[in-house]
Amino acid sequence: MQDHDVVGIGNAIVDIIGQCDDAFLARHRRTKGSMQLVDAITVAELYDAMGPGIEISGGSAANTMVGVASFGGKAAFIGKTSNDQFGEVFRHDIQAAGVTFTTPAAAGGEPTGRSLILVTPDGQRTMNTMLGVSPQLGSQEVDAGLIRSARILYLEGYLFDRPQAKAAFRQAAEIAAKAGRQVALTLSDPFCVDRHRPEFQEFVRASVDILFANEAEIASLYEASTFEDAARRAQSETKLAALTRSEKGSVILSGGKVVEIAAAPVARVVDTTGAGDLFAAGFLFGVAKGRDIETAGRLGSLAAAEVISHVGARPVANLAELARRQRLLA
Amino acid sequence: MQDHDVVGIGNAIVDIIGQCDDAFLARHRRTKGSMQLVDAITVAELYDAMGPGIEISGGSAANTMVGVASFGGKAAFIGKTSNDQFGEVFRHDIQAAGVTFTTPAAAGGEPTGRSLILVTPDGQRTMNTMLGVSPQLGSQEVDAGLIRSARILYLEGYLFDRPQAKAAFRQAAEIAAKAGRQVALTLSDPFCVDRHRPEFQEFVRASVDILFANEAEIASLYEASTFEDAARRAQSETKLAALTRSEKGSVILSGGKVVEIAAAPVARVVDTTGAGDLFAAGFLFGVAKGRDIETAGRLGSLAAAEVISHVGARPVANLAELARRQRLLA
Repeated sequence: MQDHDVVGIGNAIVDIIGQCDDAFLARHRRTKGSMQLVDAITVAELYDAMGPGIEISGGSAANTMVGVASFGGKAAFIGKTSNDQFGEVFRHDIQAAGVTFTTPAAAGGEPTGRSLILVTPDGQRTMNTMLGVSPQLGSQEVDAGLIRSARILYLEGYLFDRPQAKAAFRQAAEIAAKAGRQVALTLSDPFCVDRHRPEFQEFVRASVDILFANEAEIASLYEASTFEDAARRAQSETKLAALTRSEKGSVILSGGKVVEIAAAPVARVVDTTGAGDLFAAGFLFGVAKGRDIETAGRLGSLAAAEVISHVGARPVANLAELARRQRLLA
Repeated sequence: MQDHDVVGIGNAIVDIIGQCDDAFLARHRRTKGSMQLVDAITVAELYDAMGPGIEISGGSAANTMVGVASFGGKAAFIGKTSNDQFGEVFRHDIQAAGVTFTTPAAAGGEPTGRSLILVTPDGQRTMNTMLGVSPQLGSQEVDAGLIRSARILYLEGYLFDRPQAKAAFRQAAEIAAKAGRQVALTLSDPFCVDRHRPEFQEFVRASVDILFANEAEIASLYEASTFEDAARRAQSETKLAALTRSEKGSVILSGGKVVEIAAAPVARVVDTTGAGDLFAAGFLFGVAKGRDIETAGRLGSLAAAEVISHVGARPVANLAELARRQRLLA
């Protein structure tokens, strides 16, 4: 098996991205900036109501793996699609981006997962996700050889929302740990953390080497009222944590060390979808390549800035080239 | 039945848009700037080879109808989709754009049509279209009431490529003519014209009130070696013709009258897909609203400039608003 820098496990999702105004979100009782799981009926109602969309492959950990590949890293993805047209689109796009993706598609049953992403004029995204077949990821899909082939295993917190996917998630973490690999986790969403707090806390303590979270997620994990409180808890309970703070940049906590990274400049924020996913891509690429955590953080900021400057959650520019221009890569 | 300004008949297509370089086109024997019909095997091979894509609803006449609606006109579309995910995407997007679309989806059989659109760094698009279920448009789908409800019937030349669709096309033209409506035709593609030249010539003479063509298409129709020769033939054989010439603007021929329209300025040509479709949208909207042909031509140029400034063949900006800012609409 070819060596990989990172293997990600997450939901396989096609994003349907449309524009809307704040009144639309209010009318449809959506919480701006959140990710909400929706059923087939709600997704159909929302889709009927929203304007024209464009379809772009997404999925949090999948976006991160595409980012790692764009930096020139070797990335792989494990996730469940159906043998429908969206599944075909997802498979094509991630493979065309250079990511190893061999999870077989399910035949029939639930469709490939989709997320209706409503982007408001301020560039904020509100996600409404129908997971479809995605959480049917089972132990048979957890490719042990692939996981052992990668320096880092990257897990998407969203998978905690369904028992079968959560079991696959834990199984993957055990395989990686036994092989001496690092295990990274992104908390994905404050509401997801809220639904599974005790399990997340225990998993972070026992199994996670690198934790990714934004301000709301880390506050939710530790039920902290300030970012400082949450960061203190993270520092004592994790080996390495990267906490992202939107335009305030990010804070990297590594043992006793605290490194603050400024957000990279963006001419105009068009669509914030994927900002966290791409920060993780740059950071993971840096860590996998043995860079210091400050450089890893700056690679993360660079990738996040690229992805929020256009519609869609996957990079359009070549991130390795951008990083070379900034002298972050040789 | 509600009154419409224009009803369009054409192929229902979802575009899969990706970037490539000239070497990729050469390697896959594609003629830059053309539309080529491809079968399921070729489309799969090309899709495998191309980079990540984004999916946006397309189809020539469908794009034009969305443009008419964006100008504030009442537009309808007749075209065949399948009951698959791309069919659902096509239906959602055209309806969400405010276009009447009631053609029932086919159940099973051929999939919804798709076009792999390869965009080179110069903004040119090369289309590889698998028509799928689209040419199965039959007389049962030609909604006579809908056609009679519209001032103008707009026909997409691409439909000439399949006998059943061509029959539906002729049937629609007869219904419109009998009801005293105008019949407009776009030649769509020089190679399509070449495949059906005698029929196109006869149809233009006998049944067309408004002809749309670009330089290559009008030259192909009349086997002319210069644009001037082709334009002279068009002037003698049509009542009204709008000939588009990319950055050289367009020439409107109306009886003895010749009006030249400059191309509207574009900061950067990103993707020329849909330029002709959107020119037709502005022009048809102008004619349907009783504007003089110069104003209609300028509305066409404005819409074409908007659509080539971004990826995808449907307008992103509100065309009515753009036209008001240019004082082309009150």
